[in-house]
Amino acid sequence: MLDFKVVFHVSEKNRWPVAITNVKNFLADTEGKKVAVTIVANAEAVTAQDIFPQLEELAHKGVEIAFCNNALRAFAVPKETLPSFIKIVPAGITALVQKQKEGYAYIKP
Amino acid sequence: MLDFKVVFHVSEKNRWPVAITNVKNFLADTEGKKVAVTIVANAEAVTAQDIFPQLEELAHKGVEIAFCNNALRAFAVPKETLPSFIKIVPAGITALVQKQKEGYAYIKP
Amino acid sequence: MLDFKVVFHVSEKNRWPVAITNVKNFLADTEGKKVAVTIVANAEAVTAQDIFPQLEELAHKGVEIAFCNNALRAFAVPKETLPSFIKIVPAGITALVQKQKEGYAYIKP
Repeated sequence: MLDFKVVFHVSEKNRWPVAITNVKNFLADTEGKKVAVTIVANAEAVTAQDIFPQLEELAHKGVEIAFCNNALRAFAVPKETLPSFIKIVPAGITALVQKQKEGYAYIKP
Repeated sequence: MLDFKVVFHVSEKNRWPVAITNVKNFLADTEGKKVAVTIVANAEAVTAQDIFPQLEELAHKGVEIAFCNNALRAFAVPKETLPSFIKIVPAGITALVQKQKEGYAYIKP
Repeated sequence: MLDFKVVFHVSEKNRWPVAITNVKNFLADTEGKKVAVTIVANAEAVTAQDIFPQLEELAHKGVEIAFCNNALRAFAVPKETLPSFIKIVPAGITALVQKQKEGYAYIKP
């Protein structure tokens, strides 16, 4: 039984720094608890590449990171440019809805 | 029994294009499934008129579209200027809270 | 048994006016009903001071107001500068997740 389940939604490039800080603070604050954390990026947020090192760090801590394939296509981001720790989902919105259906809290940083 | 229920919250004019794309992608991704989709617009988002044709298209696909009456008053938008497929709700926030109480996922595009 | 429970998330300074209007409209629209309303501020939103008088008014109406301590530290806001009606929570995100776990609707103004 998980103590906390939360999905973070990032849809704007300039919100990545706040989102990453949010996730880090949440992980630090809930240390020792059982948590499930997912980040879903869609729209122009999938074009950010400078944040990959920070995302990799979060992935190593167990954070699930999903990029929206509709957005990748719309912004012409080739899938091959994404590191393997980023999961590609057909539609980011469906992933966000599904997670909430599973009891995840929703946060828009 | 619905497969997915989701309410989209639009409060800024410049987020309408992303919101409309989100809804379209969600409908395409969940084709064949039973979904309930509502868009609630409040604050300055109720002043957008250029997106009416696209909203009409979504309304024809079964999307419920609600504009906040507090916002219409605050931004001096006469109700008569809204097409009939847009439902007016007394307070957009209450509509958003009510939907979530009914199990709708919340998305802020 | 509460009729409505809602948590508002404010993470940007310039969204405070909309957030405050949202809360006021919600309280007016649900007058006579049993509601629980919380505002959680994090990130740069904790640096706003000009909105304290309006927040005090909301606090008097029973709205719980919480500022994120991580954000206060990050933006070098001394705790002593906060009025007593503002509650300081260790991590705003955890508070937002906890509230949703308790059945609160989430609104990002």
